[in-house]
Amino acid sequence: MAGSGLWWERPDLRYRDGRLEFGGQDLAAIATAGTPAYVYRAGRARENLARLGAALESAGVPHDLYYAVKANRFGPLLDRLRARGGCGIDACSPAEIRLALAHGFREQEISFSGHAVSETDLDVLASHPGVHVNCDAISTIRRLGRRGRGRRVGIRLNPGLGAGYNDRLRYAGEKPTKFGIYPDRFEEALETAAAAGLTVDTLHFHVGSGYQGDALDVLVQVLEDVSRLLDAHPGIRRLNVGGGLGVRMTEADVPIDLARWAAVIARHAVPRNLRVAVEPGDYLVKDAGLLVAQVNTVEDKAGTRFVGVDAGLGILNLWAYYGIPYVVAPLHVPPGARLERVTISGNINEAIDLLAEGVEIPALAEGDFVALLNVGGYGSAAASNHCMRGEYREMLLPGDA
Amino acid sequence: MAGSGLWWERPDLRYRDGRLEFGGQDLAAIATAGTPAYVYRAGRARENLARLGAALESAGVPHDLYYAVKANRFGPLLDRLRARGGCGIDACSPAEIRLALAHGFREQEISFSGHAVSETDLDVLASHPGVHVNCDAISTIRRLGRRGRGRRVGIRLNPGLGAGYNDRLRYAGEKPTKFGIYPDRFEEALETAAAAGLTVDTLHFHVGSGYQGDALDVLVQVLEDVSRLLDAHPGIRRLNVGGGLGVRMTEADVPIDLARWAAVIARHAVPRNLRVAVEPGDYLVKDAGLLVAQVNTVEDKAGTRFVGVDAGLGILNLWAYYGIPYVVAPLHVPPGARLERVTISGNINEAIDLLAEGVEIPALAEGDFVALLNVGGYGSAAASNHCMRGEYREMLLPGDA
Repeated sequence: MAGSGLWWERPDLRYRDGRLEFGGQDLAAIATAGTPAYVYRAGRARENLARLGAALESAGVPHDLYYAVKANRFGPLLDRLRARGGCGIDACSPAEIRLALAHGFREQEISFSGHAVSETDLDVLASHPGVHVNCDAISTIRRLGRRGRGRRVGIRLNPGLGAGYNDRLRYAGEKPTKFGIYPDRFEEALETAAAAGLTVDTLHFHVGSGYQGDALDVLVQVLEDVSRLLDAHPGIRRLNVGGGLGVRMTEADVPIDLARWAAVIARHAVPRNLRVAVEPGDYLVKDAGLLVAQVNTVEDKAGTRFVGVDAGLGILNLWAYYGIPYVVAPLHVPPGARLERVTISGNINEAIDLLAEGVEIPALAEGDFVALLNVGGYGSAAASNHCMRGEYREMLLPGDA
Repeated sequence: MAGSGLWWERPDLRYRDGRLEFGGQDLAAIATAGTPAYVYRAGRARENLARLGAALESAGVPHDLYYAVKANRFGPLLDRLRARGGCGIDACSPAEIRLALAHGFREQEISFSGHAVSETDLDVLASHPGVHVNCDAISTIRRLGRRGRGRRVGIRLNPGLGAGYNDRLRYAGEKPTKFGIYPDRFEEALETAAAAGLTVDTLHFHVGSGYQGDALDVLVQVLEDVSRLLDAHPGIRRLNVGGGLGVRMTEADVPIDLARWAAVIARHAVPRNLRVAVEPGDYLVKDAGLLVAQVNTVEDKAGTRFVGVDAGLGILNLWAYYGIPYVVAPLHVPPGARLERVTISGNINEAIDLLAEGVEIPALAEGDFVALLNVGGYGSAAASNHCMRGEYREMLLPGDA
């Protein structure tokens, strides 16, 4: 297991001499200073951003990238993204807009897409005229228009097709979903905008969350459908393809083919001279963060080995609530360590509070430290103090530039 | 609809002249002062507590009630429960023990049952020798014993059978669950306690969450099984039957028959001269609290009428994550209001962020206020700041004694 080509190992996250290193640093020092601890490497987020931009660049697609800050709003991480440039912020609430501004992003670098937008939310949007608003409902268009004419806005379309890591993560699909305006009311939305004195410059959609591999076919289909709308409305000059690009989380996952992804977009955007916007969240931060926890209990119960740790669904809910798996990696794997099949249980008093189920990993003992990988997105961002077990440390990897 | 015998109406929560009253007060004043707002009536929680105690009293069961504070830790509510007496606190983390002490509960009134208990947790338990600890693992017994001999403890048994409002809420069942010690290792647990110098005075178990109606049969079966252990170990003088008693949440739910529940317990406890402990959480507070929200968007999307409100799964996740339904009640129902089938959508950017689906209620318009009933437990207690939509007001009903 020591530096032994596990599927998820990469130059900045791997075992060396049986010890897990992140950005070249042994994680043991961080672990012994206190757990649970979220640790991020901003450098990895920037690499992910650069890869995405390069794919679009290679395909000849003029583009703007907006980091979906709902995935992770840890301040130092935002500062690092801001410092290097290359992305704006995708915000879904007034507080996220204020956070972005506080970290130095300009209004013109902020794209807003929210659902159930309140009057108070609209007042905040009106006070930031440079923020680009994608309207998720005809109601939003009408009520935003009341606050002043002349603004350029986008319309969020519900494509009626969805892709995601699993069923819980589809944003559109067979059952009507709450997001956006369906094609049958698109003309009405445009008319409402015109009557309100708003200029629709962007068509926005989102096909899901965590899509990978073949799920890209859904994007292909959606873009075919969207093209008809674009052709009918040549005033629309930007295409916002949302976020949702997936990150490989198990060995069986087939990663997204970025070149194909960019080519699919280019096929529709380039001939129409459209500028493309993308709103990656998880894609930038998911594999840039991990959670270090300490094992406190190892016990066999009815044939299952439960490994209890000092973290739970309050601070990391992706497995319990969404069925999104983490990689479980002991910080130290001694030579000759045997593999065991275990279930990692959290410290919240709910039966569903498990962090991993039936995973085969090197044996863990009480007192050992373990890292849960691929939790840089939607981990701390959705943390609660449930059972008053909500405390955790959060940091960038020391020296992370 | 005005005062018209809806299934959930009761003297302290009902329509009068088309306006929703809680504890005799029109909720409109609270709504216009700011939404979203959690509103609790401590009086209702105390009534629920009294009903539970009376049922046990009638059945001749000597008992202690411990409020499972994980359900709702709002300080003023705890103060009211403390002031009237009649219950201690069931805590599942050191922070909950500290909270109970801060609100005036004595160590002797606190019962602890935690999972994945860390060394730090055990240090805190050791510093509060009066707190009664139910050990969820043999590991816990061993490690607690290291911190001093002579303590009286309980053993949490995993009965291998579970009941709950739905599958996600079973604490024990066919698949091994993380909680407690299974019967096959019960003797080993007792031996470990004896070797560590701990006295096992309590047998603790928990069969689920939200059990109602026929699910009581599971308790009957579990108590049959548990009785054999009690007979084999006459030194155990207390039986802790956990919590999990359900509250009716839909018209179709069959409420728990408290007299039968108490009789089932009495049948096993009384002949053995056992003292019984109960740990109600939701049963005390669920129907003592509601969330007032404001409608901002009413829009038909692909044949579904979505009613968007200024609250979402960040502050109320029971439907999205657990499938636990709320009652949706407009604060004002004008005469002749027509019923509509709607889906209530929250303001979080996730497709699963719905608060109710396909419910038939009096028509709502943008700007209207609505109350979500039966959210006094596990609502604010598990709130997060996801999407930075985490703000809410929280209060006792004015004048609530």
